[in-house]
This record gives sequence, structure tokens and C-alpha cells, in this order.
Amino acid sequence: MGKTFLLAPDSFKESMTAKEVCAAMEIGIRRAIPDAECIYVPMADGGEGTVQSLVDATGGTIINKEVTGPLGTPVMAQYGILGDGKTGVIEMSSASGIHYVTKETKNPLITTTFGTGELIKDCVERGISEIILGIGGSATNDGGTGMAAALGYKFLDGDGKELPQGGGYLSGLVHIDGSNVMKELENVTILVASDVTNPLCGEHGASVVFGPQKGATPEMVEILDCNLQHYGEIVQQQLSVDILNVPGAGAAGGLGAGLLAFTNSTMKKGIEIVMEYTNLKEKLKLADYVMTGEGGIDFQTKFGKAPFGVAQAAKSVNKNIKVIALAGYIGKDVETLYDEGFDAIFGIVPGASDIDALLAQGKQNVIRTSESVARLLR
Amino acid sequence: MGKTFLLAPDSFKESMTAKEVCAAMEIGIRRAIPDAECIYVPMADGGEGTVQSLVDATGGTIINKEVTGPLGTPVMAQYGILGDGKTGVIEMSSASGIHYVTKETKNPLITTTFGTGELIKDCVERGISEIILGIGGSATNDGGTGMAAALGYKFLDGDGKELPQGGGYLSGLVHIDGSNVMKELENVTILVASDVTNPLCGEHGASVVFGPQKGATPEMVEILDCNLQHYGEIVQQQLSVDILNVPGAGAAGGLGAGLLAFTNSTMKKGIEIVMEYTNLKEKLKLADYVMTGEGGIDFQTKFGKAPFGVAQAAKSVNKNIKVIALAGYIGKDVETLYDEGFDAIFGIVPGASDIDALLAQGKQNVIRTSESVARLLR
Repeated sequence: MGKTFLLAPDSFKESMTAKEVCAAMEIGIRRAIPDAECIYVPMADGGEGTVQSLVDATGGTIINKEVTGPLGTPVMAQYGILGDGKTGVIEMSSASGIHYVTKETKNPLITTTFGTGELIKDCVERGISEIILGIGGSATNDGGTGMAAALGYKFLDGDGKELPQGGGYLSGLVHIDGSNVMKELENVTILVASDVTNPLCGEHGASVVFGPQKGATPEMVEILDCNLQHYGEIVQQQLSVDILNVPGAGAAGGLGAGLLAFTNSTMKKGIEIVMEYTNLKEKLKLADYVMTGEGGIDFQTKFGKAPFGVAQAAKSVNKNIKVIALAGYIGKDVETLYDEGFDAIFGIVPGASDIDALLAQGKQNVIRTSESVARLLR
Repeated sequence: MGKTFLLAPDSFKESMTAKEVCAAMEIGIRRAIPDAECIYVPMADGGEGTVQSLVDATGGTIINKEVTGPLGTPVMAQYGILGDGKTGVIEMSSASGIHYVTKETKNPLITTTFGTGELIKDCVERGISEIILGIGGSATNDGGTGMAAALGYKFLDGDGKELPQGGGYLSGLVHIDGSNVMKELENVTILVASDVTNPLCGEHGASVVFGPQKGATPEMVEILDCNLQHYGEIVQQQLSVDILNVPGAGAAGGLGAGLLAFTNSTMKKGIEIVMEYTNLKEKLKLADYVMTGEGGIDFQTKFGKAPFGVAQAAKSVNKNIKVIALAGYIGKDVETLYDEGFDAIFGIVPGASDIDALLAQGKQNVIRTSESVARLLR
């Protein structure tokens, strides 16, 4: 009797990509069950690692592309084209992420999503008509105006002059000029991976909730919130698109709003998009066991993390399938996950150790733990 | 279908006694399988924790007793009386252990096993006729002469004067006077728990191999080895007991030799004694699963550690029984244990952490890991 393991971990951040985790799991499992079949479905949740996992899961390609970083200086970004050749996958943070700014340089008045727009543009110029866009980890608060500018939109002041990049200048916005937008954009659909439901403005809005972590002082928060409100009103007036009363418009410093205003986009939870594009549910039908995991697992895992999506999907396909999760860090109230489709959750850490050592030895720890799990299941 | 788990861990040193580990395992198991039967068989291997585990496993009693420490000053020692009321269990280190000396005070020329003899004497005075004696962790190199002195033996020089305590003085030994030995001793049998096969003297002897870790300089090693040789010859001449050519006589600084020379003693591997006195094999017949463990597990576990004994015994009783081990530290080449009766070995550590934090949270980590293991088995 062969046993089929579906391996669907997220990446172990700073240690292994999801695919590398799959490979380590397989080594361990096959030590215990030499004829075990292992199906790799590297996962992600729309955040960091989504491009790599979807490319790996579909046999796609990674594209490197120099674009404008959040501070206006060039950065080397990446995006992916899935194995179908017609779907692009972008993480906005690769172009406009918070990791590009330092304590000294972070300033959400001037940071821009322009580079994210350049990645979209590059995709479109390659004939891609469907783009998955993960929008976590932004350094920006520009309402997505930079992104739109890269696609050809012009944000003009009363004198018809283009505004400088950054949410700090949007108070001067008088007119949005779409006459130079790249033509192909109208045939492009963007699936926005976001679990955020915050509106663009107000006390739950982009500036108030996420501004401070991007470096906004209380004064900056007030300016930015006010500017996004003004921007929302102009968009409403001139484009007849409501971005002020839409949940999720506040994601990524208002990039959510910009995508709604200037592109054909739909928001969906990251894990759902990843499950769809990896055909997870179809593949689950072949599995006797599911092994998932992530660098860290705790009670928050059930709020949309990849292993949660995998566990839920597994039980929906076959309630008798056993779902085992591995993690480098087992956090608070992990037991609450047992009600959410997880059968067992094991830490992979072999003993007292500092984080750097653990990150370096992730592979051997996954191998070892997977072997013991598989030995119990054989 | 009820499931019966036999819980037979060693202690997790500095974190939990073996019985406390059993209790934590049961909590975790019963979260997964509420009607699981759990049989506690707290284990030990003859080393630290043997008294506590055998007392716990048999429903015995701990006795506190002030005795002479290895440096001649009083220490508060403990020993146990098993639930049968007639078997004593002593760890020599409780009276004469290396933990009683410091870097500054360690001096194997003068350290004595006298306190260990006092514990034996106290046992015997209570009518105990069978004593299990674990002899690991000694600070001594006196050939067991201190132990014998506490029981009434006199070690005399050429002038008929008693020698001072300590292996450094044995060069002066001329006569062993047994005329004042406590009478009851002849009816007492001592089962010595020792995995050491070193002889008393020579390059594999007590002084050369174990002397340095007790503070012996190269010069001291030479003196001690020479003195134990002389002592062995006197014992041969006057008591007609050969302690010079006996494997294990070099254990615990030659306490092994002293026990052979002056008491009715037999040496046996610690884990075998513990398994015998806990009726492990009989209890294994009732078990569907075995959960064992120890603070640390690695390839050396197979050289006589408690989990190894448990795994071997389990498979000898029922080769289909699943043996799962938990450990706070998973060391080198742990996979080699899979050939030795272990089915699975899981670390309990939840993430990057220092040892003190881990020792403090051992219970919750055992509970959590046991729960996940039991969830896979149900």
C-alpha cells in the first residue's frame, strides 16, 4: 500500500523557501516510508514568498527588473510568471517594501508605489493579462498614485503640473489625467491578495493604522489621512469610483484604493488565491496525508496563514485526511488550531539554541521531524 | 477501544522528575484521547534520579540523612526505601558526589566515600537487607575505603594507626581490620548499578580515566593509581578478594572495588536494575503504546540510557508496540536509534530559547508534544 503525502508548507522565513521545505519533508518521509509518494505544493499566503512559491508550484519563471524604489532610487525587484505563461505574480514589497527604508530614511510623505506600477507595466508589456498582486509590507502611503503614475496616469495640480511622488503632496491634487495610460491595461485583470479590510481614511484607515509603522509622526498621520480623503474625493468626482467606502482600500498605504480606481482589480484573501492557482484542492484528492508548516505557528495562524488554508482545504476534501504541521517556532495557544483542521503540530527545534543557528539548520530539523512523523504513520 | 499508554521516561534533568514527566505526558495524551489509560513507570538508568524514580515507581519513601560529604564536612543526603519496605536505594552522589566540590576544593587525594557508607549503614540499621546502589557522579578516588570505614572497617598504617580519609593516603596501608564491622552487613546484598567496566588500576583504571575530571593533576593521577594498586594488593593478601582484575572495579573512583571487597555485592547495568524493580516488562504487556524520553537524547542513548532500555524491553514484549520518545535536546545521530526499538523521537522545544527558559517550561512543552503525538495515534 503506497502512501501519498501532499506537502504544502509555507516558506520558513529566512531559512527555507516553501519548495525547500517540501524537499526536506520528502527526505524525512522517505527515510521512514521509502515508497511514499510526495506531491509538492509550495504555499504562501499572499505575503513574502508568494512569488517564489507560486512560481515553484507551477513551474514558472522569476523575472528580475530594476525599478524605482519607495524613496525614488533604483532597486532590483523580482516578479514571477506562472507555469501557464499567462499569469504574472508580483509582491509589491519587492519594489516598494518597507525593507528598502531605514530608520533614518523612512518618510511616508514621500515614499512611492511607482516601482510596483513599473512591475505591473513590465508584466503587461510581456502580454500578461492576469496579475496576482500581493500587497503586504509596503513602505508607502501614497494611495497607489505612484503605481498609477507608472502606468501612465498623471496627477496634476491647479497649474496642470505633475505632483511630486508621495502621499504628502496629494493635498495639491486637482486633476487626474488618464489620457496617457498604457492601452493594454484595460484588458488586464489584477487579483489583489490582501487580508486587510481597513478603509482608505479615518480612524481605521491606512494612515492612522499603518502610517506609524512606516515612520509617520502624529502630524504626518494627520496630513496623510487628510490628503487621502481629498484624493478619494477627486477620484469619486472625476472617475466615478468610490474608494472612500470600500473595505480593503486602505491596504498597503492605500494601494488597495489605487488598484480599485485605476485597474480592473478584485481583492481576495492571499491564501485563497494561492490555493486556487496551485490547484491545491484537486491535488488533495490524491493525498493520504498532508504535511504543512511555516516558520512560526501560533493561534494567529488561523487568521489566514497558509497552513490554516491548507488544513481547512484538506478537511473539506476528505475529513479523514491527517494534517500535520511543522514549525520552527510554536507560539501561544497553538492548541486552538486543533479545532481548525490540524491533527498534529510539531516543533522542529532540537534544543536550546539561538535563532541564527536554527535558521541555518532548518533543513536538517525538518528532515528529522518529518521522519519521526512518518514513522508513526506507516 | 481504549488505548493504554505506558509512560516510562527518565527525568528531564534540572526540569522535571520522571514522575512529573509522566504526569505531563498524561495530560497531553488525555487531551487527545480522553479515555486513554496511562500507566506511570518513572524510569532511571542508575544515575541521577534513580532514587526518586524507583521511589515514585514503587510508592516508596525518601529518607533524608546528614552524612559526611566528600570533603569531610557534613552534607544533607537522601536515599529511598522502595514500596516493598525492604529494599533500599542509594545514589552515592547524594553523599559523595562531584557537585559537593568546587573548582577550588576538588582534590581526589582527600575526597572520601565515607558518607556513602553512612547511608548504607543507615539502611542496614533500619533492617533493610537489599540495597540498590547507583554509583555515578562521584567526587572520590578512594577505592571505596571511606565507604568501608563507615561500616566499621579500619585501614591501618604500620603503627596500627588509622589512615586519614582519601585515596592519597592509601600508600600507607599495611593492615585492614574488619573486627569492628557492623554485624548485619553480612546479611545485606548490594546490587550495584554501574555501566562502567573499567578496572581499578592501570591505563583504563579509575585514576587515569576518571581522576582528571575530579581535579587530579597528572602527578595526582600517578599517586592515586599507584595507591589503588597497593590497596588492591593488600586486599588480595588479607581478604583474598581480587579487585585488581575485575571489570567495573574502577567505577566511582574504585568504590566498585570497595563494594566487591567489603560487601556482598553484584554489579549490573543501571537500566536493567530499574526495569527489574519497576516490573517494567510485566506492565508493558498491558500497553498499546509506550512513551519514553529524557532531557537529552542522542546516539549515546543506546549505550544504556533509560529510554533505550524501555524501547528494547517494549519490542521484546511486543514488537508491534509503538515507542515514542520525547526530549528537550535532540543530539547527534539520533536516527541511529530507529534501529534500536524507537519508532519516533520528537523534540519538545517550541523555538529559539535559552536553556533556563526551556528548563522552566518543560512541563508545558511535554504536554503540548504529547498531545500532538496522541492525536496522530488515535
